[in-house]
Amino acid sequence: MHRVAYFNGKIIPESEVKISMWDAGFQLGYTIVEAERTFNHKIAKLDEHIDRLWKSAKYAQIDPGMSKSEIKKETLRVLNKNLKLISPHMDYWVYQFITGGVFNFFQSSELESRPQTVIISCFPITFNHYARFYKTGAHAVTPSICISPPISQDPKLKCRSRVNYHMADLQARQSDPDAYCLMLDIQGNIAENRGANFFIVTDGKLRTPTTRNVLAGISRKNVIEMAKKLKIPVAEEDLQLYDAYTADEAFFTSTSFCILPISKIDHVTISNQIPGPITQKLLNAWSKKVNLNIVGQAFKNANLKE
Amino acid sequence: MHRVAYFNGKIIPESEVKISMWDAGFQLGYTIVEAERTFNHKIAKLDEHIDRLWKSAKYAQIDPGMSKSEIKKETLRVLNKNLKLISPHMDYWVYQFITGGVFNFFQSSELESRPQTVIISCFPITFNHYARFYKTGAHAVTPSICISPPISQDPKLKCRSRVNYHMADLQARQSDPDAYCLMLDIQGNIAENRGANFFIVTDGKLRTPTTRNVLAGISRKNVIEMAKKLKIPVAEEDLQLYDAYTADEAFFTSTSFCILPISKIDHVTISNQIPGPITQKLLNAWSKKVNLNIVGQAFKNANLKE
Amino acid sequence: MHRVAYFNGKIIPESEVKISMWDAGFQLGYTIVEAERTFNHKIAKLDEHIDRLWKSAKYAQIDPGMSKSEIKKETLRVLNKNLKLISPHMDYWVYQFITGGVFNFFQSSELESRPQTVIISCFPITFNHYARFYKTGAHAVTPSICISPPISQDPKLKCRSRVNYHMADLQARQSDPDAYCLMLDIQGNIAENRGANFFIVTDGKLRTPTTRNVLAGISRKNVIEMAKKLKIPVAEEDLQLYDAYTADEAFFTSTSFCILPISKIDHVTISNQIPGPITQKLLNAWSKKVNLNIVGQAFKNANLKE
Amino acid sequence: MHRVAYFNGKIIPESEVKISMWDAGFQLGYTIVEAERTFNHKIAKLDEHIDRLWKSAKYAQIDPGMSKSEIKKETLRVLNKNLKLISPHMDYWVYQFITGGVFNFFQSSELESRPQTVIISCFPITFNHYARFYKTGAHAVTPSICISPPISQDPKLKCRSRVNYHMADLQARQSDPDAYCLMLDIQGNIAENRGANFFIVTDGKLRTPTTRNVLAGISRKNVIEMAKKLKIPVAEEDLQLYDAYTADEAFFTSTSFCILPISKIDHVTISNQIPGPITQKLLNAWSKKVNLNIVGQAFKNANLKE
Amino acid sequence: MHRVAYFNGKIIPESEVKISMWDAGFQLGYTIVEAERTFNHKIAKLDEHIDRLWKSAKYAQIDPGMSKSEIKKETLRVLNKNLKLISPHMDYWVYQFITGGVFNFFQSSELESRPQTVIISCFPITFNHYARFYKTGAHAVTPSICISPPISQDPKLKCRSRVNYHMADLQARQSDPDAYCLMLDIQGNIAENRGANFFIVTDGKLRTPTTRNVLAGISRKNVIEMAKKLKIPVAEEDLQLYDAYTADEAFFTSTSFCILPISKIDHVTISNQIPGPITQKLLNAWSKKVNLNIVGQAFKNANLKE
Amino acid sequence: MHRVAYFNGKIIPESEVKISMWDAGFQLGYTIVEAERTFNHKIAKLDEHIDRLWKSAKYAQIDPGMSKSEIKKETLRVLNKNLKLISPHMDYWVYQFITGGVFNFFQSSELESRPQTVIISCFPITFNHYARFYKTGAHAVTPSICISPPISQDPKLKCRSRVNYHMADLQARQSDPDAYCLMLDIQGNIAENRGANFFIVTDGKLRTPTTRNVLAGISRKNVIEMAKKLKIPVAEEDLQLYDAYTADEAFFTSTSFCILPISKIDHVTISNQIPGPITQKLLNAWSKKVNLNIVGQAFKNANLKE
Repeated sequence: MHRVAYFNGKIIPESEVKISMWDAGFQLGYTIVEAERTFNHKIAKLDEHIDRLWKSAKYAQIDPGMSKSEIKKETLRVLNKNLKLISPHMDYWVYQFITGGVFNFFQSSELESRPQTVIISCFPITFNHYARFYKTGAHAVTPSICISPPISQDPKLKCRSRVNYHMADLQARQSDPDAYCLMLDIQGNIAENRGANFFIVTDGKLRTPTTRNVLAGISRKNVIEMAKKLKIPVAEEDLQLYDAYTADEAFFTSTSFCILPISKIDHVTISNQIPGPITQKLLNAWSKKVNLNIVGQAFKNANLKE
Repeated sequence: MHRVAYFNGKIIPESEVKISMWDAGFQLGYTIVEAERTFNHKIAKLDEHIDRLWKSAKYAQIDPGMSKSEIKKETLRVLNKNLKLISPHMDYWVYQFITGGVFNFFQSSELESRPQTVIISCFPITFNHYARFYKTGAHAVTPSICISPPISQDPKLKCRSRVNYHMADLQARQSDPDAYCLMLDIQGNIAENRGANFFIVTDGKLRTPTTRNVLAGISRKNVIEMAKKLKIPVAEEDLQLYDAYTADEAFFTSTSFCILPISKIDHVTISNQIPGPITQKLLNAWSKKVNLNIVGQAFKNANLKE
Repeated sequence: MHRVAYFNGKIIPESEVKISMWDAGFQLGYTIVEAERTFNHKIAKLDEHIDRLWKSAKYAQIDPGMSKSEIKKETLRVLNKNLKLISPHMDYWVYQFITGGVFNFFQSSELESRPQTVIISCFPITFNHYARFYKTGAHAVTPSICISPPISQDPKLKCRSRVNYHMADLQARQSDPDAYCLMLDIQGNIAENRGANFFIVTDGKLRTPTTRNVLAGISRKNVIEMAKKLKIPVAEEDLQLYDAYTADEAFFTSTSFCILPISKIDHVTISNQIPGPITQKLLNAWSKKVNLNIVGQAFKNANLKE
Repeated sequence: MHRVAYFNGKIIPESEVKISMWDAGFQLGYTIVEAERTFNHKIAKLDEHIDRLWKSAKYAQIDPGMSKSEIKKETLRVLNKNLKLISPHMDYWVYQFITGGVFNFFQSSELESRPQTVIISCFPITFNHYARFYKTGAHAVTPSICISPPISQDPKLKCRSRVNYHMADLQARQSDPDAYCLMLDIQGNIAENRGANFFIVTDGKLRTPTTRNVLAGISRKNVIEMAKKLKIPVAEEDLQLYDAYTADEAFFTSTSFCILPISKIDHVTISNQIPGPITQKLLNAWSKKVNLNIVGQAFKNANLKE
Repeated sequence: MHRVAYFNGKIIPESEVKISMWDAGFQLGYTIVEAERTFNHKIAKLDEHIDRLWKSAKYAQIDPGMSKSEIKKETLRVLNKNLKLISPHMDYWVYQFITGGVFNFFQSSELESRPQTVIISCFPITFNHYARFYKTGAHAVTPSICISPPISQDPKLKCRSRVNYHMADLQARQSDPDAYCLMLDIQGNIAENRGANFFIVTDGKLRTPTTRNVLAGISRKNVIEMAKKLKIPVAEEDLQLYDAYTADEAFFTSTSFCILPISKIDHVTISNQIPGPITQKLLNAWSKKVNLNIVGQAFKNANLKE
Repeated sequence: MHRVAYFNGKIIPESEVKISMWDAGFQLGYTIVEAERTFNHKIAKLDEHIDRLWKSAKYAQIDPGMSKSEIKKETLRVLNKNLKLISPHMDYWVYQFITGGVFNFFQSSELESRPQTVIISCFPITFNHYARFYKTGAHAVTPSICISPPISQDPKLKCRSRVNYHMADLQARQSDPDAYCLMLDIQGNIAENRGANFFIVTDGKLRTPTTRNVLAGISRKNVIEMAKKLKIPVAEEDLQLYDAYTADEAFFTSTSFCILPISKIDHVTISNQIPGPITQKLLNAWSKKVNLNIVGQAFKNANLKE
């Protein structure tokens, strides 16, 4: 009873998926990726994620070798086969990886060249990594390593070539082992966490960096849309540390945790009320939308008491 | 009769090397790497390469899980087993890859976590890709995509997280399918090719960018040392397009081709004499040092007539 | 039967206009300029162009030596005299040049100093240069040479001191002889073509760079105003290559061609439908406004069949 | 008795030289230029200037349409014809201008296209503009307008597209009508005057900005070489306002005045001894080299008493 | 009859307030500050100022050691005691200073350490410094010294560590002794005066820089709110010198003068009508709001005739 | 028995030195400063420090109001009076502060204006703060807050307006309470600690940042000179985090501790041998030069056993 994955046209046991060292995904970090999650075992916003994957492919000039509807179909097949391995209360991350394949350059008796490598796989959501932060708030720490400017590498490209995000994370966790990095751009504007977007609330207004220097997160977009429906004013604008430290509320958004309240930034307490009132409203709206108590599920799976 | 490779402690057929999709090398481009080449079937400057690999490990905070002498020993074992597959005139690239391994995060029934993944492998040098340029000169084209500034990602880290280098290369090859990209830094100083350092000769002086914005290439260092012995003045300094376009000679250096003359930059002819006199002197000195006609070998293996 | 031009107070044969080598326009690129075009032999938006010329004069500290209404009157006189030279289907560019004149510095027996040099002239629109792109789409290529940052030279100054725009254009045309350059600013935001503004359409929204790094084009403004009337949402914002490559539609705007659809950016196909639906709507609205089939006229004058 | 000039193949009265408004030199500031001066009616360093002109041509991709020796020959012919117009104590500036010519684009019944426009001309040196500063020292003022970064426009290109240099000069002269602008680069390093390089002396060491952000002045090079012969240590390095304000001596170098002492920077007195001791040594060495009292000639021609 | 001030818990004669040389306010410029003014002897917007002071404290990590209501109460007590020293037509600036105190580091027999130093004081408004500019317009001059980028020091922190603002002011006053500096950011966007925000009016629209590079002035906010009520469109956006020089109106805002019209920028006349029509409207609205003729009071106290 | 200080012309008890809240040193951080230390009760390099103070005064445009020899004389008088308060094994920091004084602006019945405020004072060296790091090595941590670029505030100005240095220090100490901040410049080059310069040793070569982005420390200069005498090669060059993490040795230099070995940077161990061999050589040379065991004295005063 093990997970399966899609690998270049076939569904096989995940443990048999085999990436060559000559694959451009390994050689160059030349891999585009999407990650969805399920709520009640259904994938949320799959079409939006696949649209973004196709944008990444176009920008990075990788040919996916299949249509959007095909990758969607295969994604659902892989998920379906893996769903039986988890309990009804657990949910999955679902990933699509497309690499630049094996260049002709590396064609040899050991390996054939191929214009792309496609993997679709599932992984149980690791609720225990973050569940407690819904109540205590996460700690965001700014590292000295910045995101790349768009003239070097556009943060809107959702790819696997992001060693500086990882090193920034190491720096943040040196300051607090539980910290999440909050990277700046090279002008000192706040950008993003390695895998999450950042929002603050100031005087009742929701504020988040522009996509000039962050990934155009689908959860980010979802929060902006929900806020508009809730008549909460929203601004996409350049924010700096001053704005962050003096905010009334702050939170991260990502596919897995949806909205994660932040209580401290660089060891400065932002708020003692976690989640703050607007954060709570947005979390409630989201739970309602997916018909699942987002925080409750995380607590249950992490064996925490609410 | 197939190549073998070292993979996490064992020497196995190269085609059986299997990188998990959860490996940090694939997930994050979190892989450090070195590549040496053999001359007459002997690895050049192996100690220097391993020293630089250890520097990459320290900077990227990856634990190699073995000592320098162990990786050296395993490298020689892998090479030895693979040497019988090539003719006496052919030579090998030899690679060491060390990834961040499989994070605890991804530990599951499908996979064990591991602090690093180590691969050592060989690949026959693809002389046919560049041999003709020793005579015609290569064409360097500057793309609009720049290298990352060191506050984002230090170019001195020899890693596999470099999608912008690949995209820069795509841009250069749109301008000329045979072109090599010549990336700039974000101030407009010349940096480097995706896998090679850049030199020019102006009024008898050898000039090359500083390591602020290029990899500290071992071939680069070798050229600087040979030049000093040959009493050619050398400067490591910021260079701009004007310097490149108006140079008397220009060339790339890399582990495989050693020194590759450049005849054109952005379609502007630098010199019609290829190689230029100082480039030729350095090539001769290098051939003598490794006791092998570097250009001759490339021509022979590419089936070109000198 | 030759064209005439206004030159420092007189209307003379264009070929007798004589700019001294000591004129600041030649010595320093110290020339401000406007270029209008006629539709059905009438100048469009002449007042707006003259207002912008006066802004350039103020910023560059050149004294035009005449009033707005005088230059307008002389412009119409020059046009009137030249109109008889073209067919009813052809139209004119109309230019005003004002240089810093001849500095006292260069006063000599050969030449008197003068606080400005004013030229007004006409040139038949070169429809054959771009007519085909209304159907095939233009190709925009990003060069490595960037626009100057406003702390060095403000792109809003419509002047003749723009050698970097020309060199950027040379780079783009090395990649494709038919290409139009699409320059970036030094942060990697998309700026402009040497003589045209840039727009994209993403999910039904029209997007264009801010005037921080582009000329405040009058055609640009016209498109924004028409879009608002057509209820197409418009944003002036920082855009990057990712936005451009993944856009649904893209086009340039300029005085001569009004709106020129773009089919490819850096050799990446943006859209196969040229013009895209929103581009078409805007082109139609413009044709209606000037009571002339913009594309039809270009085709006719370029001897192309629609 | 009027000056003559070379214009596209002929030597004609200077006042008949006629630059078309469609010439790229006027349309785009697409003109490269050199300016030498005579000492005792002989041109200094003509070969070096022509070499630099050829570098400008190569970088800007203008075809001079003639050889170096031809332009040299024509230069000497023009000078020769003009020398009789000046007294033995006066000297000339000698200019070569090469524009991008008239593009095919503008070919019409009024004008033929041409790949370049070449002008060679003379102008009596305007000693009265600066002679007094040899004794009082010049005043250097830093404007808020910076030089362009090399990714936009390389300051090493000696061209006529430099409106920002002129606007910087206007700013400086607003602060003091006699001031010379001293432009900064966008990082805040000192760059150059619109037409002169900048040097300081600190603790006996001569210091000047690198060619990353200044024109590679031939007078600059001359000063560096003379200093080396005089055993004065020299550094080409990034300098900031602090270095300038706190220098022991400061001076400009240019073709016309050779070395012009600076007494004040931004209204801060650098030194009351003008010229300072090292400045004086360099001026003496230069006068000796050209066999002419540089300061004396300037005073005489400006009708000043030494 | 001398002014009193609050100093670390006591109200004492102002001249007895004594800041130790070991206080962080002196040692490091580690002092946050607010300055209000009275209208008719009542402090305007005291709560807003104290809220901003608390934001400064949080960002700078200084513990005020008292509550907002306490500092408010003490502020009113100090003002009350000082009011009797001025005439009914005069008004006061009221300041709160909080420094980082005396670090343990400097604890010694001479001095006790203390986590903060708090001062509250009054100063009669120096109307004579600026009253005339309500009629003649102020002169704004851009210095070469820029504000710090937010990655170095956020301009939103209202602190006393701003030597570059003072040096920029010196530069501006070298150009015109009456000038106000108008600092740029390092990209060339207009930022602010050392103590005032900057606005322009272009085609009926009020425009001001964003808080990325300026202090979030309370007068600035007030003007934006009044403009909205008066149906004047307002934009917070990046502005450059071109926008400033070519504006229809321009003015500064600050706590003391409220709105000060600008007639010239870098010696370029912006407008001869001072105040311009929109500036006048805003001034009128403000006077009405505070029930005091703002300009009239300034004139009276400066002994000028309106 | 308390310390005395020089204050505007008089020597008075230190505790009676009284800085007005209206003093520019408090109002603007407009204070220049020097700090020397004694060895065996004698001030080292007093002339060099006073020369640098005079440079600061010139750059910041503060008139010290006295001559170099006067301030030297007063410094020695203050020291002399204070020496009797410390044991023979203890030593002093000696400070000169010169502020911009009290501006006319603030002239009032409470206070006279004054062009400068001058303070000279002593403080016993706090050996216990750092003595242990001679053996364990200090920990350098890079904060996200950068030094200002020289176009904003030149780090060579030794002034008291440096709140960003303090905030950077707070960030570093959040990561490790014992850490010393190691600030970067905005390009990502290593700059300096708030009060110390930074050196590394790589392959036997001593390397330190250039004065473009650090204070021109007198201890820094001393180390460079000693290294040259010891035939250790030295380079002043741009260094990045990669260089720091992979160095063989690293240390800080400052007036108080002279040379302080660094064992860790961003929690990465640089070396386990503290001090490293070259660091030790330099420490020995310095101790010899000042005829005092630098480490021994620190240990003794900190009550540590060597």
